[in-house]
Amino acid sequence: MTVLSLPERVTIREVGPRDGLQAEKPLPVGDRVRLIDALSATGVRKIEAVSFVSPRAVPAMADAERVWAGISRAPGVAYSALVPNRIGAEKASEAGVDALKAFLAASDDYNRKNVNRSVEESIADVAEVVEVGRAAGIPVEVAISAAFGDPYEGDVPPERVARVAARLVEVGCVGISLGDTTGMATPVRLVQVLDHLRERVPGVPLNLHLHDTRGTAMANALAGLQAGITDFDSSVGGMGGSPFAPGANGNVATEDLVYMLEDMGVATGVDLAAMIATAKLAEDLLGHALPGQIHVAGPRPGGE
Amino acid sequence: MTVLSLPERVTIREVGPRDGLQAEKPLPVGDRVRLIDALSATGVRKIEAVSFVSPRAVPAMADAERVWAGISRAPGVAYSALVPNRIGAEKASEAGVDALKAFLAASDDYNRKNVNRSVEESIADVAEVVEVGRAAGIPVEVAISAAFGDPYEGDVPPERVARVAARLVEVGCVGISLGDTTGMATPVRLVQVLDHLRERVPGVPLNLHLHDTRGTAMANALAGLQAGITDFDSSVGGMGGSPFAPGANGNVATEDLVYMLEDMGVATGVDLAAMIATAKLAEDLLGHALPGQIHVAGPRPGGE
Repeated sequence: MTVLSLPERVTIREVGPRDGLQAEKPLPVGDRVRLIDALSATGVRKIEAVSFVSPRAVPAMADAERVWAGISRAPGVAYSALVPNRIGAEKASEAGVDALKAFLAASDDYNRKNVNRSVEESIADVAEVVEVGRAAGIPVEVAISAAFGDPYEGDVPPERVARVAARLVEVGCVGISLGDTTGMATPVRLVQVLDHLRERVPGVPLNLHLHDTRGTAMANALAGLQAGITDFDSSVGGMGGSPFAPGANGNVATEDLVYMLEDMGVATGVDLAAMIATAKLAEDLLGHALPGQIHVAGPRPGGE
Repeated sequence: MTVLSLPERVTIREVGPRDGLQAEKPLPVGDRVRLIDALSATGVRKIEAVSFVSPRAVPAMADAERVWAGISRAPGVAYSALVPNRIGAEKASEAGVDALKAFLAASDDYNRKNVNRSVEESIADVAEVVEVGRAAGIPVEVAISAAFGDPYEGDVPPERVARVAARLVEVGCVGISLGDTTGMATPVRLVQVLDHLRERVPGVPLNLHLHDTRGTAMANALAGLQAGITDFDSSVGGMGGSPFAPGANGNVATEDLVYMLEDMGVATGVDLAAMIATAKLAEDLLGHALPGQIHVAGPRPGGE
C-alpha cells in the first residue's frame, strides 16, 4: 500500500494582495481593499495585505496606509505586512498590522541584486525589524527568497539556507518562510532544504511560499506536506506571474491548493466556492485572465 | 529525513499528436507529420501518433493513414495508434503500427456517453482488438478513461476500476493505462486506485495518463512515482485542453514532466531542449499559446 503521509490540517496565508498585485499594474486603492475584504470572507485566516516598501521601487504597493485604513478587519483573520527594514516596520507597526514579514535571500548575489545589501547586512536589517516588532508586540517572520535556487547562481546549497535561517532565529525572528521566488524548486530539492532546516532550527515554524513558474508548485506542495509542512503561502487566481514573461504562472493558486488539500482530506478552513468567486473578482479587477485552474474548470463534479 | 521514494527511470509516451491535437481545430496532414517527426528526435521512446476513429466523430484525427505514411520512423521509437474497435485495429494493423491502445471507461454512464456502449460491450470490443493485435503480433494496451472520477457520476469506486482492469487482462490486454480524462484525480485518490490495481492485476504494466484540468497533474505524477509507476503519458506543450473551457489546461505538459523528473534524478531519456523547441513548434502550428510552463520560463537556470 502506498502511504502519502499528510497532515490533518494546514494554514494558508493568502498573499495575492501583496505578492500577487506587486507584479501587476497598480490597482486603485479601492480595488485593493475590495480584494482583501473578499478574501477575508473566504475563511482564510491569514492575509498578507500590504507591503511597506518604497513606492518608487514597487509602484503597485504604494499607499499601504490607505489600503490598510480601508479594509474591514474580519475577526479571526491575521493581517500581515511585508517590510524591508526598520522604517517599513515602523510604518506597519503604526498602522497596526497583526504580523510582520521581513525578507532576504540566502545568496549574496541575489540579495544584492534585490535589495543592494549583503546577506549579513540584511540580517542586521531583520534584527532592527524584530526590535520594532518586539516593542509593539508584533511577531516577525522572515522570508528567505530564492531558497531553492536563484536565477543568477542556480543551485543554492541547503546548508547555506539553513545557516541563514539559524542566524535569523538568533536575531529573534519567530518563523521562517521559504520562498521559491522564481519557481526553481522540485520535490527532492525541496525536502532536502526542509530537512536541513529541521535539523538546524528545530521547532521553528516553517512556511512554504511556492511559485508555479516551472509547473512544479503543486507537486512541491505535496512534497512539503509529506515533509510535515502545515503552513503555505498562496495567491488567489495564481496572481504573481512575472510581467516580463507572459504566460508564465505566478504564485501557486489558492483555489487550486485548497481544492487539492480538501480533496485529500487535509482541512484548510477555506470555503472553495468563495475563493473561486474571489479569483474571478481578481480577474475582473485586473482585466486579464489568471493562471489558476479551479476557477476555470470548477471544482470536482459529482456526489461526495 | 523525508524520503520520497522514486524510481531511477521512467518511460514517457508522448500523446500530443493524438490526445493533444484531438481537441484542436484539424491541422493539415503535413503539420501533423512535422510534429511527430520533431517529437521522434527528442529522445522520447513512445509516441501515440494517430487515432483510427471515425473522422466524423473526431475530425482532427482524420487521415490517420496519410499521417502514418508521411512520418519518418525513427529507430528505437515505438509508434502507437488509438483504436476504438476491430475496424480501427485492422486499419492500424494494416498501416503497421508498433502498438495499439484501445479504450473504455469504468462507468457505464460515461462509457455510454463516450462510445454509446456499456462497459461489458466495450470489453467485448477490446477482445476483438486483442484478436487483431495477436494475429499481427501487435501488443494491445487498454486505457481506462475517467479512472479517478467522471464528470457525470463524480466518484468512481477504485474497486470498479480494478474489476474492469481484471476483465481486460482476462481478454488479453498486456497493459493498462489509467486516464484522468477530465482532471479529477488528486494524489490520495490516485494512489488508492493504483493500490487496488496492484492487488487485483499484479504484474500488469500500469501507465498514468494525467490531465491538468484542475492543476493537480504534476502532484499526481509525483504521487504516481511514489506508488511505483514508471510509465507516463504526456503531451508536448500541454496540448489537450478542452475547446469548451478556454484557459483550462490539457494533458500534463511533456516538457514540464521531463524537467521535474530529470531535476529529481529520474531519467527520462528525453532531451529537454529539444522538447521545449517542439512545444514552440506546436504553438506555431496551432497558432496559439499552450499551457506548459517550461517552454515559457525555460529550464532551471544556473550551474548544475
